[in-house]
Amino acid sequence: MALLEFDPYDRGCPSRQLLDRIGDRWTVLVIGMLEDGPQRFSQISRRVDGISQKMLTQTLRSLEADGLVLRTAYPEIPPRVEYELTPVGRSLLLPLHGLVEWAREHMDEVQTARAGAARA
Amino acid sequence: MALLEFDPYDRGCPSRQLLDRIGDRWTVLVIGMLEDGPQRFSQISRRVDGISQKMLTQTLRSLEADGLVLRTAYPEIPPRVEYELTPVGRSLLLPLHGLVEWAREHMDEVQTARAGAARA
Repeated sequence: MALLEFDPYDRGCPSRQLLDRIGDRWTVLVIGMLEDGPQRFSQISRRVDGISQKMLTQTLRSLEADGLVLRTAYPEIPPRVEYELTPVGRSLLLPLHGLVEWAREHMDEVQTARAGAARA
Repeated sequence: MALLEFDPYDRGCPSRQLLDRIGDRWTVLVIGMLEDGPQRFSQISRRVDGISQKMLTQTLRSLEADGLVLRTAYPEIPPRVEYELTPVGRSLLLPLHGLVEWAREHMDEVQTARAGAARA
């Protein structure tokens, strides 16, 4: 079965690397940001609080190399560059939503646990 | 609505930190490893290829502090310590499965894209 060919528990398996990539904080936030359609660099940069220009450039380049994001440069003056999700990138939205929803739903419980651990 | 109270796009929001935690490579693999029931440190360490003792200790402590993993020490000789998922930790399995499944299903496409990017 195709699903069993890749094993992220094996450090040599490419799925381990892909798991690192898609689990990355910035990747999750940038992909979520592109859900509503193409965005310019400056728009993403403003919305993703705390990301540096350098880190955003790096994140977008990785996503482009992985075929998850499409970069389009419009020959205008000044030049306009937009980023959008490819169909594969879009397919990642569903599992990422699941993760973000989980974080939102269980945030209270986790905070309570942390407060207890800090007192212990 | 409770779901909108937390905003991971805001760097000051605790949900951003939680997103970092659950997106972490080791967290994903350790939680997946505990799916089938309690495990000893050495069992987890063997299965999660590439994790150092120190990193596994750190990961388990964080998960314990967040209330996702329960650590039980049995007063035996030699002492036996087991780790298992709490109900909240178990609830994280579903969204994590989604992510791992996605990685497995789309690995081929991503590898093709990477090969193309490397040639360009």
